[in-house]
Amino acid sequence: MTKQDLIDCHERIKPFIHITPVLTSRLINEMVGAQLYFKCENFQRMGAFKMRGAANAIMQLTAEQKKNGVVTHSSGNFAQALSLAAQGLGVKAYIVMPNTAPQVKKDAVRGYGGMVIECEPTLEARERESKSIEDRYGATFIHPSNDDQVILGQGTACVELLETQPDLDYVVTPVGGGGLIAGTALAAHYFGKHCKTIGGEPLACDDAYRSLMSGQIETNETANTIADGLKTQLGDRNFPLILKYVDEIIRVTEEEIIVAMHLIWERLKIVCEPSSAVALAAVLQQKEKFARKNIGIIISGGNVDLSQLPF
Amino acid sequence: MTKQDLIDCHERIKPFIHITPVLTSRLINEMVGAQLYFKCENFQRMGAFKMRGAANAIMQLTAEQKKNGVVTHSSGNFAQALSLAAQGLGVKAYIVMPNTAPQVKKDAVRGYGGMVIECEPTLEARERESKSIEDRYGATFIHPSNDDQVILGQGTACVELLETQPDLDYVVTPVGGGGLIAGTALAAHYFGKHCKTIGGEPLACDDAYRSLMSGQIETNETANTIADGLKTQLGDRNFPLILKYVDEIIRVTEEEIIVAMHLIWERLKIVCEPSSAVALAAVLQQKEKFARKNIGIIISGGNVDLSQLPF
Repeated sequence: MTKQDLIDCHERIKPFIHITPVLTSRLINEMVGAQLYFKCENFQRMGAFKMRGAANAIMQLTAEQKKNGVVTHSSGNFAQALSLAAQGLGVKAYIVMPNTAPQVKKDAVRGYGGMVIECEPTLEARERESKSIEDRYGATFIHPSNDDQVILGQGTACVELLETQPDLDYVVTPVGGGGLIAGTALAAHYFGKHCKTIGGEPLACDDAYRSLMSGQIETNETANTIADGLKTQLGDRNFPLILKYVDEIIRVTEEEIIVAMHLIWERLKIVCEPSSAVALAAVLQQKEKFARKNIGIIISGGNVDLSQLPF
Repeated sequence: MTKQDLIDCHERIKPFIHITPVLTSRLINEMVGAQLYFKCENFQRMGAFKMRGAANAIMQLTAEQKKNGVVTHSSGNFAQALSLAAQGLGVKAYIVMPNTAPQVKKDAVRGYGGMVIECEPTLEARERESKSIEDRYGATFIHPSNDDQVILGQGTACVELLETQPDLDYVVTPVGGGGLIAGTALAAHYFGKHCKTIGGEPLACDDAYRSLMSGQIETNETANTIADGLKTQLGDRNFPLILKYVDEIIRVTEEEIIVAMHLIWERLKIVCEPSSAVALAAVLQQKEKFARKNIGIIISGGNVDLSQLPF
C-alpha cells in the first residue's frame, strides 16, 4: 500500500465522511508535559472512525459486487459503519449479529438501513451465517479490520491529523482488531516527518503486545476489559504492517483506562468510548517517554451507553 | 449599547477566548424538522461562555482599577471565568463563595489563580463580604450577569455564530441571570438578518417568563431545578434589553431538560451542563413553531459533575 493509495482513498471517501476537529487541553498538556492533539473521530459520522474504512471498502467494489450487496459480522461500530456507508452508496448491507446483542445496537444498524441477521453468539455461527449470505446473495464479505481497503480508510484520520499538525513525534491509537493502528502507521510513515506510531492496549487483551514480541499473531485468552471495542484479534492483512511500522504497544490497566476516560470527558468536554481512552492512558502511564513531544491521539469513537458509565 | 460596541468588545477579548466550533446533528435536525446549529461554549476556556463577559469587564477597567483587583460572588462558572480572565490580564481576583460550596469548585477557582473568600451561604453574607473587599482593597465589583460589559462579552458568542450561519431565524439560549440572553439578543438584533431571540427557562425558576409578562423584574420562588446555573434572577441592566429584544421565553419541565441533555450527549458527543440543555428542550417542546427554520442554540457550558448525571 503506497502513499498514493492513501491519498486516493482519502479523496474517494471525502463525500461520505466528516473532516473531524482536533482538540487540545492546556491542563492535559501540563499533566503530561507535552503537546497533545486529539483527533476526534467520536464526531465522525455514526460516531466512530470505522466509517472511513467501511466507505472505502464498498467504493472499491465492482459495479457487479455493489449490486449484490455487502455482508459483515459485527455487533459494534463496524456494523453501523458498513450500514451507513452502504446506504449512502445505494448498496445493500447484511449485518450478522449475535442474538444476544443489545436491542439498541440492532436498532442503530436498522436505522442506518442495514439488514440485521441474527445468529447464535459464537464465532462459528457468525462465520457460517455470513458465508451463507455470501452464497445466497452473492454479497461480498467485508472484514471490520483485516482488509486492505478498510485499513487504508482508517489511515485517513491520521492523514488529516498530520495535515493540521505536521510535526508530530508520535501518534497513539487504541489497538483492537488492528485496522486502525495499521492504517495509522502507514499514514505516519508516509505523511509524518518523524512520526512514530504507538498502540495502547488493555492488559486484559494484550494480543497485539504479545504478537509484536513473538513475531506471530497471538490470541487473547481473556476479554475482561471495559474497552469493549478492543477484544478482537489481529489478522494476517494488518499484522505485517503493524510488525513493520508500529514502534511499540503499551499495555494499560482497567483503572488507567477509566482515569483517562474521565479526564477526556471532564477536560475536553467530549463523549468518548472507553476504547478511545486507552491511547491517552498509555501516554499518561509513560510520561517520561512522551515529555516535551508533539503527540497525536486518535479518539476512536463516541458510541457509549450513557447509563453504564464507569464513573 | 451599539453594534460597534459589540464589534469592539469581540476584537478586545479575542486573545483571551476560543472561537468555539458550531456542531450539527442530522438526527436532531430530523427530530425537529429544522436545521439546528449548536454553538459549543462548553469548549470555551474554563468550560463556559462566562469567560467572554469576564474578560471584557476586566479589560474595560482603568489601569488604577486593574491594580486593585476585581471581586465577585459566585459559586458557579463566573467565579472560574473571572479568576482565569484576571490571571491572563495580571489582575487579582477575589471570589466570595458560600462555605457550603463543593471543594472541587473552590479548587477550580484557586487553580485559575482566584483568591477564595468563604462566607455564610446567604445572599446577605455574600454581599456583605464582597462590599468589605471592595472597601478594604479598592477592588471593583463585577456582577456575573447584570453588568453592561459582561452583557456585551456574552453577546459575542452569538456574533460568532451569525458569522458562520448568517441566515438564522432564531437563536435560543438558556435564561438564568439574564446576561447571556441579553447579549445574545443584542447580537441577533445587530448582526442577524431576521433573527429572533428566544429563551429557554426551567418551569421551576420561571422569573424571566413572568417578568416578560408583567413588564417588571419578578423573583423566583423555588430553585428546584437540575439546571443549577439558571437559579439566578434578572437584573436592572439586562432586563430592559430582554424586554426590548427577546421574542419569547419558553418554559420547560425537568424531564424535558434531561431528555434534551441526553440527546446532546448521545448525538453531538459532547459534555454539556443541564443548564445548556434547556435551550434545546424549548425547541423540542415547540416543534411546530420551529419547523423548517434555521435555529442557533447556545450550548452555554460543560462544567458538570460526571458522578452526578441524571441518566
